[in-house]
Parts: sequence; structure tokens; C-alpha cells
Amino acid sequence: MSPALIGVDWGTSNLRAFRLSVTGAVLEQRDSDRGLLRVTDGDFEGVLRDVAGDWLDGTPVLMCGMVGARQGWREAPYIPCPADLQSLGAGLITVLPNVRIVPGLCMPADVLRGEETQILGALDDDQPVLAITPGTHSKWARAGGGRVDDFHTYPTGELFELLRTQSILARSIAGEAHDEAAFAQGVERALTAPGLLGLLFSVRADDLLGRRAPRTAGAYLSGLLIGAEVAEGLARAHGEIPPVVVIAGPRLAGLYCTALALAGVSAVRIVDGATAAARGLWRIYEATR
Amino acid sequence: MSPALIGVDWGTSNLRAFRLSVTGAVLEQRDSDRGLLRVTDGDFEGVLRDVAGDWLDGTPVLMCGMVGARQGWREAPYIPCPADLQSLGAGLITVLPNVRIVPGLCMPADVLRGEETQILGALDDDQPVLAITPGTHSKWARAGGGRVDDFHTYPTGELFELLRTQSILARSIAGEAHDEAAFAQGVERALTAPGLLGLLFSVRADDLLGRRAPRTAGAYLSGLLIGAEVAEGLARAHGEIPPVVVIAGPRLAGLYCTALALAGVSAVRIVDGATAAARGLWRIYEATR
Repeated sequence: MSPALIGVDWGTSNLRAFRLSVTGAVLEQRDSDRGLLRVTDGDFEGVLRDVAGDWLDGTPVLMCGMVGARQGWREAPYIPCPADLQSLGAGLITVLPNVRIVPGLCMPADVLRGEETQILGALDDDQPVLAITPGTHSKWARAGGGRVDDFHTYPTGELFELLRTQSILARSIAGEAHDEAAFAQGVERALTAPGLLGLLFSVRADDLLGRRAPRTAGAYLSGLLIGAEVAEGLARAHGEIPPVVVIAGPRLAGLYCTALALAGVSAVRIVDGATAAARGLWRIYEATR
Repeated sequence: MSPALIGVDWGTSNLRAFRLSVTGAVLEQRDSDRGLLRVTDGDFEGVLRDVAGDWLDGTPVLMCGMVGARQGWREAPYIPCPADLQSLGAGLITVLPNVRIVPGLCMPADVLRGEETQILGALDDDQPVLAITPGTHSKWARAGGGRVDDFHTYPTGELFELLRTQSILARSIAGEAHDEAAFAQGVERALTAPGLLGLLFSVRADDLLGRRAPRTAGAYLSGLLIGAEVAEGLARAHGEIPPVVVIAGPRLAGLYCTALALAGVSAVRIVDGATAAARGLWRIYEATR
């Protein structure tokens, strides 16, 4: 089966390339750790050839993610929300003949890049959803009908790593093992407290008072942060919550499903990030034809 | 005038010693940077002699702060709240003849050490107040009548430094100059948003979208964090807010007064931290006689 499109999801830390058939099915996938941080000489074309040179026989290439940032191959300006497949397709920038980059999206005080493709790829039909891409900078987007209506960023993963390793809380956290009960306790506290700031020091105090073993404190802190994200995300969606789509691998998706369930949200569908990216790239490509 | 007490507020980074008269007035004050972090050989007695050896003619010494922590001179166990001058006085531990340490306070999931003395020293009369000691780990305490009823910790200062210097936000923050308008904007956003987590990334997005100059972004981030602390602190005090006492130097006190005023709280008294510590040490000492 001859490929119709090479799709590339090129982020800060990793790169993922897909060979897609004329129906958009993934024929082959390659993962690489040559994200933006490892392209120090600006030779993005060289990296693309190293990873997928044998695929580049004139087949069109469509890329999304930080490769379109200011510090990437070339900057693809942000498109304001609401934005649909057509407006993203119209905003593609060309870096080589046949090689194009999907722009990011912006809100009055927010930006994203790469998640637009995953979110549009994770839509099942025209029904509105609340799409969540958990991670370093989690995004919550309202989307549906091939369109992203709005979105909001929560730097949950970044804050977790900073607090876990660099703050005074680090002295009360041992190891990275998961502990379901401690995670759930953190989520529940975050869902009922007036805010996150006044919860963080409990990680330290619980240790000093002999109330929590340091080996479960990391999971508890993770619960506090993901719980705060869920509480805020649901508050910002005010009113009826549409079905939720979590775009993540199994481990992270499981944490979010637990937190959402504790918050009373049980209509949750999980889509793997790679699947969502490949399908989104295909849909944006199709919208340009 | 012969001294009646040597008071020492001995924290993580600094040490402050007071010579107090028989009426509790400060006859002399000495500041040193030999906080716990600089006492690496455990010779606390040597440091006390270096700083105030010429004062130690048999006059009683009373110390508060991290000197009573596990990693200090000797651990002074936490006293549960509510706690008054008498229970603190009864909990003093003796490290040398005539040299004693004030214990810290605890709540079911919180601890403090040193602030108990400042808070009790900042009380004016028997009326209840909401006392705030802003800083690395801000404390909000309800207190009055020589008693601390309860308290809550907000690691606002620590989070500010981590985010300002170690997070992705650091790329959008230039310098440490204050900017009143940016600070106030941050406070106002924090007072009306459903939570802090979803506000942090705006520091980065505002820069990427050309909406904020990096030289005002530090003040804006400070406003977000102090605003979140004030919002949570007032929410936790639910109901009528008693008069507020801010225990801090002029710069930090000014920021908190601005944030409190934006939240509708205008009955605020400011007490300098050194004054509060000296007076608190004197009151605890008096309660033991």
C-alpha cells in the first residue's frame, strides 16, 4: 500500500513519525528522542532525513508541535480560537517543497502548539467534548465538529517536578512509586479545599508530624496537583460537563480517570497520544485538499 | 538599665538578638547571618557566644525559631493549637542553664516554628485578629487574648522563587523591579479566578503573544501568588474577617496591604517582624514567672 502522507509530531523532547495510507491508517510509526532540545545546530532537515529519509520519496510531509515554535524549524504563527480544520489547513507554513508545519492556537491569554492536532484527531463525531491533554503543561479544550472552541493551560506536570525535586517538600518525599490511596487522598483534599496554595505544605507537615510515610508523599502531591487541575478545569467549564476525552498513555490517563471520577465525572474516553496525533495530522491534511 | 532577658529569634537564614529591659523594652539589637544553614558543625553555643557573649552575664536567654527544630540546637516538640502564652511557657526546653527554647505549634496537618512568638508579640489587646506573617512559608493565624487559635501555611515565597527562576516562566521574566500595575493585575486575576494553577501559564503566554513586557512579569507573577494566598486565606477564615495584622518589613507589608485592599479588607495594622519577635519573647518569658 503506497503512503499518502508522512505525519510528524515533533515536540520539545521527542519526535514521532507516521507513514499514513490513503485512508489515513498508520502503516508504520517511528519514535525518536531527537526533540527540539537535541537539535542544537538548527539542522531540522537533517534530523527529518535521519529519522524518515527512506520515506521521503515525494510523499507530502505534515508536522505539528514545537517544530513550529520560534526556537523550532520556523515559526508558524498562532491561530486564534475558535479554529477548525480548515483554518488550521489554511495556516500551514511551508519549510521545504512538500514539507509543511501546522500552526498553534491562541486565546487572549494562552497558547498551545501540537495539542491542536491531537485534540482534533481525538474527536469521534460532531458532539462537543471536553478534551484534556495531561502533562507538563496540561491543556483543557472544548472541541467538537472539527473545531477547537477554547482552551486553558495548567502547568501541572512542571509544577509537580519542581516541587518534588527542588522545594522543601522534596525532603519529605522518597521515591517515585505510585500509591493509590495517597493519590486519592490528595485529589479529595484538592477537590474540597478553597485552593491549591494552602495544601502544598501539608506534604511537609504530615512528615514532620509522623502522619505520612515519605514513600507515599509523591503520590499524595501528585493527587493534590491533579485534583486542583480537575477542580479548576471543571469550574472553568461551568454548567454541564460534556463527555471528557483524555489524550494520554495508560499511566497518566489512569490518574486523570481516578481524579475525574472522584469529582463525579465518569463519562471519560481515553485516546492514546500517538493515535490522536496521527489522526489529527491526517484530518488537517485532508482539509487542505 | 540592667537587662532582664536576652531574646533570640534564630531562623534558617538569620539570627536576631535583643537585650530587653525589666519592662521588656529593647535596649539593644544585633543582627547576624548565622542562621541554621551556616551552623554546619552543630556548635550553636559558640555562635550564641560570638553574637552575644558580652551580654551573657547570667541574664536568662530565651530563643525561638528553627533553633528548636530537629536540625537545630535541640528539638522542641510542637504544641497543639489552640495554645497560649502559658502553654508555650510550660513547653520551653532547656539547652543550657538559663538558656531555653520556645516550642513550635502544630495543627492536625500543619506546623510552624518562630511565628508563634511573632504572632503573640504582635497582639495589641484581647481582641481577635487575623495575623499574617508573609514570606517563604506565609502563616495565617487566628489569635487574640494571648492565644493562637489556629493557623494555616501558604508556601507563597518559596513557590515564587521556584517559578521565577526554575520554571518555563523564567524565560518570560526579566529583572526584579517592582511594577505596581502589573502586581495589581495579578492580584485581581487571582481574586476572581477559580484557582491559581490555571493562571500561572499566562506569564508565559502574555510574553509569547506580545501582551506583557518581561520586565513587569515578575511583579505580575508575585501578584498572582499573593492574590491566591489572600483569596484562600480569606476563604478559610469564612464569615466575618477580624482586623488583620501583617507582621513584616515595609516592602512585603506594602504588597500584602495592596492585595488585601483589592480583596476588600482595609482594617490592616503592620508590625515589624523584629518588634513582634522581641515583644513575643518577653511575653512568653513573663508567662513563666
